[in-house]
Amino acid sequence: MTYSPITPNDINVLTEIVGPDQLTTTHADRLLRAKDQSQHAAKLAEVILFPQTALQVAEILRYANQRCIPITPWGVGTSLEGNPIPQYGGITLSLERMTRIIKVHHDDFQVTVEPGIGHKDLNRELARFGLFFPPDPGANATIGGMLANNAAGIRTVKYGASKDNVLRMQVALADGRLIHVGSRSIKQSAGYDLLHLFVGSEGTLGIITEATLKLVPLPQLMSAVVASFPTISAAIETVVAIKASGLDPAALEFIDPKQCAILRDHAGVNLEEKPTLFMEFHATHRETLEYGLQELLQICNDQGATGFRATTDHAERAKLWQARHHAFETLVRVHPGKTFVIDDVSVPLSAYPVLIAYIEAQLAEHDVPAYMKGHAGDGNIHVEFPFGDAHEYDRAMQVNDRIVLKAIELGGTCTGEHGVGIGKAKYMQAEHGQALAVMWAIKQTLDPNRILNPGKIFPPDFFNG
Amino acid sequence: MTYSPITPNDINVLTEIVGPDQLTTTHADRLLRAKDQSQHAAKLAEVILFPQTALQVAEILRYANQRCIPITPWGVGTSLEGNPIPQYGGITLSLERMTRIIKVHHDDFQVTVEPGIGHKDLNRELARFGLFFPPDPGANATIGGMLANNAAGIRTVKYGASKDNVLRMQVALADGRLIHVGSRSIKQSAGYDLLHLFVGSEGTLGIITEATLKLVPLPQLMSAVVASFPTISAAIETVVAIKASGLDPAALEFIDPKQCAILRDHAGVNLEEKPTLFMEFHATHRETLEYGLQELLQICNDQGATGFRATTDHAERAKLWQARHHAFETLVRVHPGKTFVIDDVSVPLSAYPVLIAYIEAQLAEHDVPAYMKGHAGDGNIHVEFPFGDAHEYDRAMQVNDRIVLKAIELGGTCTGEHGVGIGKAKYMQAEHGQALAVMWAIKQTLDPNRILNPGKIFPPDFFNG
Repeated sequence: MTYSPITPNDINVLTEIVGPDQLTTTHADRLLRAKDQSQHAAKLAEVILFPQTALQVAEILRYANQRCIPITPWGVGTSLEGNPIPQYGGITLSLERMTRIIKVHHDDFQVTVEPGIGHKDLNRELARFGLFFPPDPGANATIGGMLANNAAGIRTVKYGASKDNVLRMQVALADGRLIHVGSRSIKQSAGYDLLHLFVGSEGTLGIITEATLKLVPLPQLMSAVVASFPTISAAIETVVAIKASGLDPAALEFIDPKQCAILRDHAGVNLEEKPTLFMEFHATHRETLEYGLQELLQICNDQGATGFRATTDHAERAKLWQARHHAFETLVRVHPGKTFVIDDVSVPLSAYPVLIAYIEAQLAEHDVPAYMKGHAGDGNIHVEFPFGDAHEYDRAMQVNDRIVLKAIELGGTCTGEHGVGIGKAKYMQAEHGQALAVMWAIKQTLDPNRILNPGKIFPPDFFNG
Repeated sequence: MTYSPITPNDINVLTEIVGPDQLTTTHADRLLRAKDQSQHAAKLAEVILFPQTALQVAEILRYANQRCIPITPWGVGTSLEGNPIPQYGGITLSLERMTRIIKVHHDDFQVTVEPGIGHKDLNRELARFGLFFPPDPGANATIGGMLANNAAGIRTVKYGASKDNVLRMQVALADGRLIHVGSRSIKQSAGYDLLHLFVGSEGTLGIITEATLKLVPLPQLMSAVVASFPTISAAIETVVAIKASGLDPAALEFIDPKQCAILRDHAGVNLEEKPTLFMEFHATHRETLEYGLQELLQICNDQGATGFRATTDHAERAKLWQARHHAFETLVRVHPGKTFVIDDVSVPLSAYPVLIAYIEAQLAEHDVPAYMKGHAGDGNIHVEFPFGDAHEYDRAMQVNDRIVLKAIELGGTCTGEHGVGIGKAKYMQAEHGQALAVMWAIKQTLDPNRILNPGKIFPPDFFNG
């Protein structure tokens, strides 16, 4: 695939589309959008565009498609797999000036937004209506980026991932058509589910220019629980038992003993150096919450829990959870000068103990330092490898490679919530087999000139084939 | 599009693929599978095949694709929009002999099944594990058919439609490739969501040969409530209030006054001739259930409910709900000699009162007899038109046409759960605009010879274009 370099004439045409203040070619501006929060190498786009309407996005695409200029969409750069890095230069299409809340459909528990709004900013506005958009990847990712990557996070065990919380989108196609996919009707059986085809496609099939999201009422009451266990398998058995109980946790997180020790020693958190579960429950009645906690205590005790702290108090809850929320920052702080590779694999719950045991054994065998933090309720685990040089990086990636292949072998996936981006493309064939060729056929149908976020999702042999 | 008629040689080859007892060309067998439960005209396939393995399905497709023979999949024929009618003859591929439960992954709350098993039969087996597959379209539809149509039903308000309760499928493509889509991992962000592309595609993109379904624990406790209201808008406002309350109903059904009167007069059910809601709630603690009922009573009273009967007793609950479950049978019984057109439109909840008022006005204006029954919690309504001759049918269909267009105008859909089949194809352009061309491009990519369930989903101008 060869792309056209951007010419002065292209800049003129693009300036005409977006307006003079909505385009930049300065090195500083391009550098600011040259990489996300992953360890993948930065690449400079040739020009950054800041469209302000869906029509402008569509016009940019139509033009770029005619001229064979690659386009990489950009939200705010919080992704973790190189997803918005402009691998082939060209245009970085930043949605950061499309941040409007178009309409709150409060009777329908829905909101229609532009793609550039951060989910935390959105939730701040929605609180007035007693509603919120539940997927929470941690950072203030944009809604467009969350949908494009199918981001998830700690609340997914109850409320689902981004794909489960979107109803309708407007999408600009490579050839400049603007289409609507999905429906504001909760129920829909009218033809192919294009909505979910575009969600998680990482900007390789089209660019999301508007989205109508599902919202849920803010929980009236919440409890938080931190429980520690003698062994990882006891902790994981507890996860399975909680899921079977119908207690419907709103968060069910696992942190490994080493990381608990760091949080204890460096963040002043009252934790044992043991496999630990962080949990949250939502309810409409205090009694429900308290019955739930009694049942939960029983389940944890049955698995030999060595610690169990629970609270329904707001301030106390925030304190308990703080450790989980700031765990990664603490890790970074106690590893000065190191960068982290963060892996993201997910397996069926029954395979989770096997996967965790395998990860532990691999880390020990290869003497590679790493930490585990997992959305255990979903069978999702992040392995966080600190590295300081190329040698440490290579060693981490070798272990990482085994972990990913093991997850796939266990019926799981190479990425539960970070997306494929650059780093996971090499596992797509192993995970999907012949279905990958079907994905590619769809890519070719919707983006025959391969202008949309090239270099992502598909391994190079597809892309250059 | 011209298809090849089936020759004696085709029969020989197909017999070789499936075996001599797995193929029939008798008139009786073909007639038995010539139509579903809709009002659409029967059509005879030329041959019925009963494959017993996914590989046989794939081989049949490969052969039919080479020979340009149309293939229509068949489950058990309970669909309501002509979805499995073999419009162009050819092969009806019946999955009725692929009914195995391949594996219950009870730790993962999942089950892997062949497509021909009925969901009621499946749930009977799953009860031993304390689990169930929640989508319930009423009839004992097959899992393959439910997935192909994205069937829903009364429990969807809490548990989602078929598309929300499937994780992984094996699909045979038109060219005979067998692929796997989705993952047994609950979380997945690895490339395009092909799973949901095939779900709801009504057998026009591929044939589902295996599915892994999400299950949920059987509810420990349930309550049932029947409440009647002075006006339709009061009933619908109650629906909105219940959804905002966080009470999380497991069913939230609306029945119109006329139908309530029929149930009272002809089925001995204690109902007022008033807009009536049937509700169900699931809980793990008795107190939760009872607090919920108190809150619910308050909500219903706030809307001026004229009747409110609630129970947490199993036998009493079954009795209360019986009226809802047998409502359609009762309608049929009191209209001897009539057939029914059942419409299925769905809108955002806020538009539901407008839609219902519009339907009432249309029925009155054109003096067309019809009944309304709705999955109100989802904004879904079924209008049931009895007809006895072509004139009554035409009048019903004219009113129906206006209702469908109104639903689309209100931001809704021409079909919430019955699928497009034959009857809704003409609304696809109005509902989807340019996105319909994208659906067609995908169809052409995956089934270039248009052998898969031709005549469904797309209007004739696409199909013949």
